[in-house]
Amino acid sequence: MKSCGLIVEYNPYHNGHHYHFQQAKEITGADCVIAVMSGNFLQRGEPALIDKFSRARIAVEQGIDLVVELPYFYAVQHSELFAKGAIRILDSLQTDAVCFGSEHGQIDEFQQLYQTIQHHHQEYQESLKDSLQQGHSYPKANEIAFYQVSNQQVALDFTKPNNILGFQYVKNIYDLDSSITPVTIERIKNDYHDLDIQHPIASATSIRQALLYQEEGSIEEAVPSYTNDVIAQYKKTHGTWHHWQVYFPLLKYRVLTMTISELQAIHGVKEGIENRIVETAKAASTFQEWMELLKTKRYTWTSLQRIFTHILTNSQKSEIENLLTDHHPKGFRILAMSKKGKEYLRYKKKSIEIPWYTSNKPPYPYQLIDERVDHAYYSILPMHSQQQLAKQPYLRPIIKDA
Amino acid sequence: MKSCGLIVEYNPYHNGHHYHFQQAKEITGADCVIAVMSGNFLQRGEPALIDKFSRARIAVEQGIDLVVELPYFYAVQHSELFAKGAIRILDSLQTDAVCFGSEHGQIDEFQQLYQTIQHHHQEYQESLKDSLQQGHSYPKANEIAFYQVSNQQVALDFTKPNNILGFQYVKNIYDLDSSITPVTIERIKNDYHDLDIQHPIASATSIRQALLYQEEGSIEEAVPSYTNDVIAQYKKTHGTWHHWQVYFPLLKYRVLTMTISELQAIHGVKEGIENRIVETAKAASTFQEWMELLKTKRYTWTSLQRIFTHILTNSQKSEIENLLTDHHPKGFRILAMSKKGKEYLRYKKKSIEIPWYTSNKPPYPYQLIDERVDHAYYSILPMHSQQQLAKQPYLRPIIKDA
Repeated sequence: MKSCGLIVEYNPYHNGHHYHFQQAKEITGADCVIAVMSGNFLQRGEPALIDKFSRARIAVEQGIDLVVELPYFYAVQHSELFAKGAIRILDSLQTDAVCFGSEHGQIDEFQQLYQTIQHHHQEYQESLKDSLQQGHSYPKANEIAFYQVSNQQVALDFTKPNNILGFQYVKNIYDLDSSITPVTIERIKNDYHDLDIQHPIASATSIRQALLYQEEGSIEEAVPSYTNDVIAQYKKTHGTWHHWQVYFPLLKYRVLTMTISELQAIHGVKEGIENRIVETAKAASTFQEWMELLKTKRYTWTSLQRIFTHILTNSQKSEIENLLTDHHPKGFRILAMSKKGKEYLRYKKKSIEIPWYTSNKPPYPYQLIDERVDHAYYSILPMHSQQQLAKQPYLRPIIKDA
Repeated sequence: MKSCGLIVEYNPYHNGHHYHFQQAKEITGADCVIAVMSGNFLQRGEPALIDKFSRARIAVEQGIDLVVELPYFYAVQHSELFAKGAIRILDSLQTDAVCFGSEHGQIDEFQQLYQTIQHHHQEYQESLKDSLQQGHSYPKANEIAFYQVSNQQVALDFTKPNNILGFQYVKNIYDLDSSITPVTIERIKNDYHDLDIQHPIASATSIRQALLYQEEGSIEEAVPSYTNDVIAQYKKTHGTWHHWQVYFPLLKYRVLTMTISELQAIHGVKEGIENRIVETAKAASTFQEWMELLKTKRYTWTSLQRIFTHILTNSQKSEIENLLTDHHPKGFRILAMSKKGKEYLRYKKKSIEIPWYTSNKPPYPYQLIDERVDHAYYSILPMHSQQQLAKQPYLRPIIKDA
């Protein structure tokens, strides 16, 4: 049974995602499509609009066969660790191919860049170090180093986040000596950060903007109707979608009752940013304002949001670093599956060396961190919603029978 | 200039408090009345209905000359430490007398009990230890030990919380070899826990009940009109009064994102209660329900509320224990004063050995803990209220000019 892996966040699942899924299936000839998906918090350090179970349900309804959670300690990280986690899970699952969207659409360019960097490893590292010392952010320093070693002979545009992620996927496949074949598809229209929803393939950013800041119903054109239904139902049942502003009072409370040494122990906090976080917390009236007061050249919006996520979920350096020392994850968590997905697991059972789980019940190895992260995520909802949703991880998995 | 100290919480200042204040002044012949008052959280482990600055303002408006804050680490404690902190502050302030209300109204009985316990120290300690081992709460064990050593020859009713507190005041005055004269006034009518407000001297409990669970305005009969005005204005400006239920979502979020070892580090958490706190947090829909699920014979309602206060304010054993090692407070914080109060401080300036502060600005020794506790207290208010009220401790002190 041939399989293809996708690395996704589905925040929310839209027409562009659906196009990519179908293209990937066709190009790779896969019978089974596996999505590794971030959980309740995302790579860019944001709460997902709706929870991971709702997003997993949409994915299987749209035809994905297996939705596997990318654990929190891989998901809410810069692109290198995010990619490492996702590729390791797909490698463990013995996926034949990984198909990612890129601005460029040519896999050769990614492979060539990998070779170039391998050959100029030292030069690359030195350039990276120099730029960081000059106060550039990590992504910017990376971009500069890429340009320097590739000597303008690589056509990849490193300012595009999907190219960066794509490169990291390819790099991790090769570093791991994995049998996964990397495949890329050119992304159609609509920039990652584009705020215009006037197109059937709109960006997830524009869809979220429309949901949060415009009237309801305006996303219909850009998402499958099932996505639209689930999103509307979520708000109807639980009173809100999840976005940073609703967490702002909680986060501010948390920051202002922590000691400085407790803040320093949080994953991602370094170089005295803890003092700025406390001082700006007192002055800010909204989350947006807090971020604007906090932002510096060295700290990108995204890296600050990741720090806020780790504060909110009380994720400490010692814990995260310890979890990251494992070469492969201790196990993976299946959020949803189709009949085909179930079959795939049965078919591969003997050769998959890592245990998988369809519930958070012991001996699921990440129960404690998952429960903590999930509680933080649901904490802004009405009490009855919190109680109902906190039970989900212990119920039967989402299985699409059709 | 003769002075008399009162140990108070004024939650809120009512006719009974006013009567007690006037009686105390008359009986002791004091020119200056000093109130040592709990801050934003109270001895029984509850947030005060309105903040400490509002309560201090009411007190000076009603005639109190000096309102000194009983620091958090003394205030939110069982009666022994609460009394110790208050007496030490009044002793530092060279107060001539301390006047407390009691069910009994006879100071001799308190003195006699002190002597009896001194004479039967070992017997008392053994009885206390026995009862605690049998699973009794600390107050109950104390009560049993009192009865045992007093051999029924002391007329004090140890089930009355004001008698217990009164005894601790007397004990601390003698233990400290202080020159303070203890004085007691019989409390008039209305039990501490009485819920009936149909009397001009109603209990603070019944007044809070009326405010929180009945229509507005119904407390007019039981409080000075100034109290009524400030209380009404507080809600009008800030949208709510402070009581546990409004902190419930925050507290639940906090508990469910802490590790067990973090919970164990919180002041007051012991004997495995941390596990019960986490388990019951998941099941409870309201604060009341949480408390009912959590309560055991060993843990009184009050001791559990104190634990919740320390969790909310992130007050750890190491910090509180360290602060309690000081024989006298490092300084005291004046929340409000009249002209007479100001004069008293000037008059006693040379003989008061401990520095006093009218602002939280450095070198005020408890700035960090006060700021953290205050942020926790204000965190349930709208953002503009939080910002406005967080500035108060750094403004000029409340001075009544008249």
